[in-house]
Amino acid sequence: MAELFHVPLSPFCRKVRLSLAEKKIEVKLIEERYWEKDPAFLRRNPAGKVPVLKIDGHVLSESAAICEYLEEVHPEPSLMPSEPLARFEVRRLVAWFDDKFHHEVTSKLLYERVNKKVMKQGFPDSGNVKAGAKAIKYHLDYMAWLLDHRRWLAGDRMTLADFAAAAHLSSLDYIRDVDWNRSDVVKDWYAKIKSRPAFRNILMDNVAGFPPPAHYADLDF
Amino acid sequence: MAELFHVPLSPFCRKVRLSLAEKKIEVKLIEERYWEKDPAFLRRNPAGKVPVLKIDGHVLSESAAICEYLEEVHPEPSLMPSEPLARFEVRRLVAWFDDKFHHEVTSKLLYERVNKKVMKQGFPDSGNVKAGAKAIKYHLDYMAWLLDHRRWLAGDRMTLADFAAAAHLSSLDYIRDVDWNRSDVVKDWYAKIKSRPAFRNILMDNVAGFPPPAHYADLDF
Repeated sequence: MAELFHVPLSPFCRKVRLSLAEKKIEVKLIEERYWEKDPAFLRRNPAGKVPVLKIDGHVLSESAAICEYLEEVHPEPSLMPSEPLARFEVRRLVAWFDDKFHHEVTSKLLYERVNKKVMKQGFPDSGNVKAGAKAIKYHLDYMAWLLDHRRWLAGDRMTLADFAAAAHLSSLDYIRDVDWNRSDVVKDWYAKIKSRPAFRNILMDNVAGFPPPAHYADLDF
Repeated sequence: MAELFHVPLSPFCRKVRLSLAEKKIEVKLIEERYWEKDPAFLRRNPAGKVPVLKIDGHVLSESAAICEYLEEVHPEPSLMPSEPLARFEVRRLVAWFDDKFHHEVTSKLLYERVNKKVMKQGFPDSGNVKAGAKAIKYHLDYMAWLLDHRRWLAGDRMTLADFAAAAHLSSLDYIRDVDWNRSDVVKDWYAKIKSRPAFRNILMDNVAGFPPPAHYADLDF
């Protein structure tokens, strides 16, 4: 069986978990305290971060590269369109969330509130938390603008772009940092994706010291 | 003709320029002072950064997504292998350079020394410069380790991974931050890639206030 070294609230790990689950690839989840720099883990991934996926006898790192590999080797159900411009749009949005959204929002909220405590790196920086709370509004509005024009974020079908976005938002929702009242279309989109069987495992996550809010796993939030 | 909005020393723009040139796609280069947040530019790319490529009637952003698009629409000459695991390795290394190397090295050297001055954001932070100068050694050693086992970074043929790496290293070489004496295999690899016709345009770059060292454009450095 495939093995995924991960941490529960990492949006990069969640994106891979969603891809694996949607494609019905069975995987054993192994929590990896990557910040403790265990030598055995560093051998698996010299970049020293999660996710790391052991599959088909290979050890793979970098979440976007992993998802493209899964798509090529397990093409059904497909999470990428077939037309080059549509594929470009999926990749652009995956990069938007994993790079820009992560830098402006996730790293400013989740990392300050959770990772710092778990990794014993001190207290949240209130300037960062404030900047993240401000930036997420702008990103939710951008998502609403996309979803006013499309059924899913990158077009008319669900793709990796939706999983990348839902991975970040679900981690932030766990710590009550998403204002679902800001946009009805974004809330409807999240309700649709949250109710997929692939999402169940994500909704069962529980991090010691950080109990999720009641609405986190509620499909009718 | 295609148009690329870019800044000369950006490794992300250089990666796209190398892909375009290798595929012999003619492009008009337009310098874009993206940090001045010109509204017309923000309409082209809401992420507010370069590169932005206008091609085939589309406006594309995010360098990795652009390169995948070019590869799919203009497959010859190919910069990606055909086998999924080999494609994974290319994507892993592109992410390694554009994410990890950029964060640990390029942003600490190039951004401190050049971008801050050009964008009038103050003086280089000496702690960052020191950290970048230390980290590049570790990365050059990692490249040497890869090149001890392979002709090119991701395998036996030149791929996007080589362009991603060469884009970062060429920008750092422009400001004299690469110690080519550290590894013969890395130097040989760079000499090979530097002598390609696709590289010529990169070697002619000249940024006002930052004259390149004599060896920068020298193929026999």
